[in-house]
Amino acid sequence: MQEFLEKLQAALGPDVVQTEAADIEPWLSDWRGVYKGQAQAVVRPVSTEQVAQCMRLCSQYKVPVVTRGGNTGLCGAATPDARPDNIILSLDRMNQIRSIDTIANTLVADAGCILGNLRRAAQEQDRLLPLSLAAEDSSQIGGNVATNAGGVNVVRYGMARELVLGIEAVLPDGEIFNGLQTLRKDNTGYDLKQLLIGSEGTLGVITGVALRLHAPTHVRSVVLAAVESEQQALELFRLVFGACGPRLQAFEFFTDACLDLVLTHVEGVQLPFGDRHPAYVLIELADTANEEALTQLLEEVIGQALEQELCVDAAVSASLAQLQALWRLREEISEAQRADGPHLKHDISLPIEQIPAFVKTAEVQLRKVSPDCRLFIFGHFGDGNLHYNVSRPAGADKSWAAEWEIRIADAVFEEVMAYGGSISAEHGIGQLKRHAFLHHKDPLQLKLMRQIKQVFDPDGIMNPGKVL
Amino acid sequence: MQEFLEKLQAALGPDVVQTEAADIEPWLSDWRGVYKGQAQAVVRPVSTEQVAQCMRLCSQYKVPVVTRGGNTGLCGAATPDARPDNIILSLDRMNQIRSIDTIANTLVADAGCILGNLRRAAQEQDRLLPLSLAAEDSSQIGGNVATNAGGVNVVRYGMARELVLGIEAVLPDGEIFNGLQTLRKDNTGYDLKQLLIGSEGTLGVITGVALRLHAPTHVRSVVLAAVESEQQALELFRLVFGACGPRLQAFEFFTDACLDLVLTHVEGVQLPFGDRHPAYVLIELADTANEEALTQLLEEVIGQALEQELCVDAAVSASLAQLQALWRLREEISEAQRADGPHLKHDISLPIEQIPAFVKTAEVQLRKVSPDCRLFIFGHFGDGNLHYNVSRPAGADKSWAAEWEIRIADAVFEEVMAYGGSISAEHGIGQLKRHAFLHHKDPLQLKLMRQIKQVFDPDGIMNPGKVL
Repeated sequence: MQEFLEKLQAALGPDVVQTEAADIEPWLSDWRGVYKGQAQAVVRPVSTEQVAQCMRLCSQYKVPVVTRGGNTGLCGAATPDARPDNIILSLDRMNQIRSIDTIANTLVADAGCILGNLRRAAQEQDRLLPLSLAAEDSSQIGGNVATNAGGVNVVRYGMARELVLGIEAVLPDGEIFNGLQTLRKDNTGYDLKQLLIGSEGTLGVITGVALRLHAPTHVRSVVLAAVESEQQALELFRLVFGACGPRLQAFEFFTDACLDLVLTHVEGVQLPFGDRHPAYVLIELADTANEEALTQLLEEVIGQALEQELCVDAAVSASLAQLQALWRLREEISEAQRADGPHLKHDISLPIEQIPAFVKTAEVQLRKVSPDCRLFIFGHFGDGNLHYNVSRPAGADKSWAAEWEIRIADAVFEEVMAYGGSISAEHGIGQLKRHAFLHHKDPLQLKLMRQIKQVFDPDGIMNPGKVL
Repeated sequence: MQEFLEKLQAALGPDVVQTEAADIEPWLSDWRGVYKGQAQAVVRPVSTEQVAQCMRLCSQYKVPVVTRGGNTGLCGAATPDARPDNIILSLDRMNQIRSIDTIANTLVADAGCILGNLRRAAQEQDRLLPLSLAAEDSSQIGGNVATNAGGVNVVRYGMARELVLGIEAVLPDGEIFNGLQTLRKDNTGYDLKQLLIGSEGTLGVITGVALRLHAPTHVRSVVLAAVESEQQALELFRLVFGACGPRLQAFEFFTDACLDLVLTHVEGVQLPFGDRHPAYVLIELADTANEEALTQLLEEVIGQALEQELCVDAAVSASLAQLQALWRLREEISEAQRADGPHLKHDISLPIEQIPAFVKTAEVQLRKVSPDCRLFIFGHFGDGNLHYNVSRPAGADKSWAAEWEIRIADAVFEEVMAYGGSISAEHGIGQLKRHAFLHHKDPLQLKLMRQIKQVFDPDGIMNPGKVL
C-alpha cells in the first residue's frame, strides 16, 4: 500500500494525491450522512492524462477506486465502502467547458463541470441544456451521466442518456476511451458509450462529455390542476400530451398529504384555490416564443379538461411570480419531508397506465406491514416515475424509519415488480438498492451485466460493492 | 448437417424449416442484387419460442445464423455469405402488434411487423411513430432497430434508438432476453438493450420491440430555400433551429447537380422558382394544430433569412399538393440516380459545423483520384448526415463504378475521418463497409466490441462476416 501511494504521489504530486487523515475525512460520507466508508487517499487530478496515470497504478496494485462527482447522489454510489485501501477519485478540478457550438448545438465539457454552470453557459448562447434537477448547482455532469440522471423535464427531453452525444473515459487499466464525438448519427458498431451511461462508476471514469443542446424556451406557462384520483390524472395526461405535443415540459403529481406537509413546514406558500382535493397535477408548457399563444393553448386545454371532468379545479399562472409560486408547491415537498422527520423514499417507475392500480394495491400491501404508516406520493407522473415515500405513524418515534426501512421497501418493491415496474427510476442502485436489485433483476440480465463488468474491469477495482 | 436439419424440422415442422433449393433461392441475395450467398435452409418461425428452439439447435451444432427482416438494407447485413451451412432466419411471420397504448404512448410489436403498418396503426390512434424512411413499406421494425435506422425526421425525433423503450430477443444459446418493457425511466444496472440496437444481427435475434409514440403532427408547412453554399445552409440551420424549436421536423439539403438529375430523369417535377442556384434546402415544420400559425412562423423565419442573406430565394408551400411537390424534388434523387446508372454511395456523417470545410477538401482529394467524376451531394443536413455520392465522368462507361469503387471510397472515408466524422451515419456496416470499419475504427473500441461479441456469442454463430 505504501509503495502504491509513493508511486502515485511521485507521478501526480502531493497536491493531487492527498493522504492526510484530515484531508480525507470530508470525502468519506455522502451528503445525507447515511453512508460512511474509508479511503487511503483522495486524488484530485487536473487532466484526463492524470486520471489515466492514476488508473494505471490502481490497476497495477489492484487498488479499489471510487469516482466522486458532486456528491449529490441518493444511493451511496460515490461513497467509499469499508475497504481501507479505497482511493477516492474526485473530478472536481476538471471543470472547464471545452466548447459550445450554436450551429451544431453541442456542448463539450470536462466531467467535473457543475450542471447549473453548463445550463447557464448554454443559456448565454441562446440554447437550452434541458437536464434540470434539484441538485443542479452542486452535481457534476460526469456524475449526471454516470448515473443517467432524470429530473423534471424528462417528459419532453428524456433522461441524461438522450442528451449524450459522446463520452471520454479512462478505463480501469488506464486506457483512454476516446468517444468524445458530437455526431448525431454514427452507425459503426456497438454503441459502447451507452454502457458507461448509468454504470455508476463501475466500468470506468468518465472524464468528458459531449451533450446536445436544444432550442431555447423563452416562454413558459404553468397550471395547477386539482384531480380526484390518479386515474383522472392519467386521463388528463392523455389529453394534454395529444394537444400540446412537444410543448409539454413537465407533468408533475402530488397528493394532498404532500401538500399538507408543504403548507405545514414551508413559509410563504399557498394553494391557488379555496378547496382541498385528493391530488394535484402541475403542468408546464414551454415554447421558443409567443407567450400569449402558449397561455391560450394551455387555457383551452384546461377548459376542455374541466368540461370533460378530467380535473376538478385549475389555476393558470398569469405572471412569472405566480408560475414560480405554483412550482414551489411541488418543489418544496422534499424540504417539507426533511422537516417532518425521516421519510423512507422509494424512487420507482411503472408503466404509466398502471399507476392507478399500483397506488391502490401497494397501499393495501403496505398497510399489512404497517397499518398506520403515512404515505406521501409525488413525482414525475408523465414519466411513470413516482417518489413513493413512507413515514412513521402519527405519534410514533422518529426511530421508526430505520426500524421499518427494509420491511417497507420489500413490500413496495414486490408490488412494483408485480406491475412490471422498476425499483429505481432515476436515482440508480449504488449501495442503497444493491440487495433489492440483485434480488429482483432478471437473472439473465444480471449474468450479462457481470460478464460486461468482467470485460471492462477484470480485476473488479471500479467501485466495488456498488450496483453488481 | 443432416442431423441438424432433421432435428430442426422435427422441432419446428417443414412449413417453418424450408430446405428445397427453390424455396431457398429467393432469400440468398439482397434487394439490390449486390450480394449473394448460400444457405442450407430458410427458417420462418411464428413465435419467440420457435426462434428460441431454432437458436438452441444452431448453438448446439454451431450453425451460422443470418437474421432477415424486410431485406431493405444497403450494406448486405441480412444477406448470407458463402458458407453453405448458413441458415436464414426470417421474422416475416411474426407480424402482430401486441399493444398500442395512447395513455402511456407506447406500441409493442413483433419484430416482423412492417414499419409502415406500425406508423398507420399509431396514426389511427392519433399518435405518431416518427421513424420514417424510404423503405418503410417493406422494412421490418426488427431490422430497423437492429440497424438503428435513421430517416428524414431524425433532426426532431432522433434515430430508432431513441424510440426504443424495450426489446425482446433470443440470444445465440436460445435464452430469451425479456427486456420488452415500456418504462420511461429504469436505472437498474447497465442498459443492455442498447447493445442489441444497431448490432446488425451479430449479438442475438430481436423478436419484439416496445416503442414510444409521440404526439400527432396534424399540420405541416414546407419551404424550399435556395442557398449559395453549404456555409449559408449552415447559418440558415442555426436561425431555423433557434426560432422554430421542436417544430423543426426536417432540414434536408441537395446540390444543383442532384436537382439536375431529378429534372432529367423524373417526370412531373419542377423547381418552384425561375433561377437555378448552387444548392437547395428543404425545411419542414410540423405541429399538433394551427396550420395558419405554423405557416406564419415559417414565413417570418424565411423572411428574416432572406433579409440576413442566409438564403437567396425561397418558396413556401401553400397547399398539401405543393408541399408534396417540393418533397418530390428531394425524395426522387435516389430514383434519378438509379436511372442515371450506378452511383457510388457514401452514407457519412460529420460534425455539422464542419460540413462546408469537408465538402471543399473532400472534392480536392476526390479529384486527385478521378479528376472528372461527377459528385451528387444531398442528405439530412440537420443531422450532419450527407449522402456523398459519386458517379462516372460524363461519357465514361457504366462499368466505371465497379472499377473505381474502392479507390473512391478510400478517398472519401479518409477525409471523413480527418474531420472526426463517421463512415456510416445511418446505413450500418454489414458486408459493404466491414473492411473500412475495421481499418478506421478506434482500436480500443474494436477490442471492446469483440469482447462484447464474445460475451453474447462465444461460438460466433450470429451473422459471421458482418460488422466485426
